Amino acid sequence: MSADQLAAKIARKMLADEGTGPAWGIELDEVREGYARIRMRLRPDMLNGHGIAHGGMIFSLADTAFAYACNSRNVRTVAAQASIVFLDAAREGEILVAEAREQALAGRSGVYNVSVRSEDGRIIAEFQGFSRSLGGDVIGESE
Amino acid sequence: MSADQLAAKIARKMLADEGTGPAWGIELDEVREGYARIRMRLRPDMLNGHGIAHGGMIFSLADTAFAYACNSRNVRTVAAQASIVFLDAAREGEILVAEAREQALAGRSGVYNVSVRSEDGRIIAEFQGFSRSLGGDVIGESE
Amino acid sequence: MSADQLAAKIARKMLADEGTGPAWGIELDEVREGYARIRMRLRPDMLNGHGIAHGGMIFSLADTAFAYACNSRNVRTVAAQASIVFLDAAREGEILVAEAREQALAGRSGVYNVSVRSEDGRIIAEFQGFSRSLGGDVIGESE
Amino acid sequence: MSADQLAAKIARKMLADEGTGPAWGIELDEVREGYARIRMRLRPDMLNGHGIAHGGMIFSLADTAFAYACNSRNVRTVAAQASIVFLDAAREGEILVAEAREQALAGRSGVYNVSVRSEDGRIIAEFQGFSRSLGGDVIGESE
Repeated sequence: MSADQLAAKIARKMLADEGTGPAWGIELDEVREGYARIRMRLRPDMLNGHGIAHGGMIFSLADTAFAYACNSRNVRTVAAQASIVFLDAAREGEILVAEAREQALAGRSGVYNVSVRSEDGRIIAEFQGFSRSLGGDVIGESE
Repeated sequence: MSADQLAAKIARKMLADEGTGPAWGIELDEVREGYARIRMRLRPDMLNGHGIAHGGMIFSLADTAFAYACNSRNVRTVAAQASIVFLDAAREGEILVAEAREQALAGRSGVYNVSVRSEDGRIIAEFQGFSRSLGGDVIGESE
Repeated sequence: MSADQLAAKIARKMLADEGTGPAWGIELDEVREGYARIRMRLRPDMLNGHGIAHGGMIFSLADTAFAYACNSRNVRTVAAQASIVFLDAAREGEILVAEAREQALAGRSGVYNVSVRSEDGRIIAEFQGFSRSLGGDVIGESE
Repeated sequence: MSADQLAAKIARKMLADEGTGPAWGIELDEVREGYARIRMRLRPDMLNGHGIAHGGMIFSLADTAFAYACNSRNVRTVAAQASIVFLDAAREGEILVAEAREQALAGRSGVYNVSVRSEDGRIIAEFQGFSRSLGGDVIGESE
């Protein structure tokens, strides 16, 4: 299995094991080593009182892409910190796409940049996540 | 109505209008001018594959408390940016409490610090949110 | 020596050992366990092309207060991450005061909130720093 | 003049007008529209008490590259917020290179990712800056 195939397999397993994956309707577009692109459709239960996407759901989508990207080398890794800039509103029914790219790896630390855009390319948010690896596999050899 | 009573009324209206409020089971503990303390019980659909609270849900809770605090003066205000540090894991069934405090107001900008703790006081996350007011009321006089 | 006296002693030693301390003209106002308040006068070589304090110098002052606060328990500790919101401009000759408060300690991690204000109380910036302790003393028993 | 030539001219003017530019020994490597790469040699007055680069100086270098990149379209633009992750130490005499790339533009807001590396490619820090344009030119037609 190539590094990219392993990364995709890990993301599928993570998504299958998460309570949040089905709850949020997360779909995997493409996952490679150090990279993940995922999508989510905005439902009424993801909106704030202004009828636009709650910042928490925009963050949650970005954070999920970050998790798949930073675990893609099959070393168990968690978020230590993240920062998000909110740039535009998104509305019910819109599909949001989060694209996470590995920016830096140094020892047990990693930094990932995640862009959240609407399906038609409107910029919704930019996110930067700081990860720390814990050691141990995400997925076993036999899985 | 005092400033603190108005703040509490605004939070109740915001919560009632949000799709996310009932979806996440948000409860208001206390809301005053520039301050909000809210809680949420962790359900299986809020967990990641390790069986602990998804970072997105921890952020969402903090971001919700931030929204109530920064709208508490009845000027419509949105999040421009936020940063979160994840300090400990939280498990299914635990109740998380987010407490937002106004740290600074300068023109249309505000900064709020939000602590997320378990009901027994364990520190889960620290959050700092940067808000921008848009003008206009959150709640009308007759509401 | 009390915990607060030790904290103040550590900050004085850190300041004496730093190249940046005299270069920036840092002065200690008050340092206690988990707390530091320091000041710096804005000189022409700290300004950007608009004649106002360079964001880097505002951050540097906040980061210095953060360093004294997070090392105040005499465990060698470094910054892992920090976020800053810039709220107002500061001008040549103004004295900036940075006040760092410990917000959370959890294992080797800490979170500190730092406010930067002008001497007359204008809000210049808000900062949140995430520290990690490395172990080892900052200051020896005989120092 | 091309957009890239204008960007480079703006950065040269900003650097010439800054008190911090000569104080820090900033040199321009390459500036284009939405992009800046600059460098700085670490001197003793930029070190903390451990003899390594003060986090404030690493931030200052990144923030300077961010400023040149976000002003490169000749619209006066300032930093609203920035976040930095510190990944490795840098020592006296090392040359640090900061490379700023435009990640998103939306209305008056922009997001820039800045990597700070040693001259031999070691990762020192990752930075994400959030800018707001104020309007007005950085450089006049006749300059």
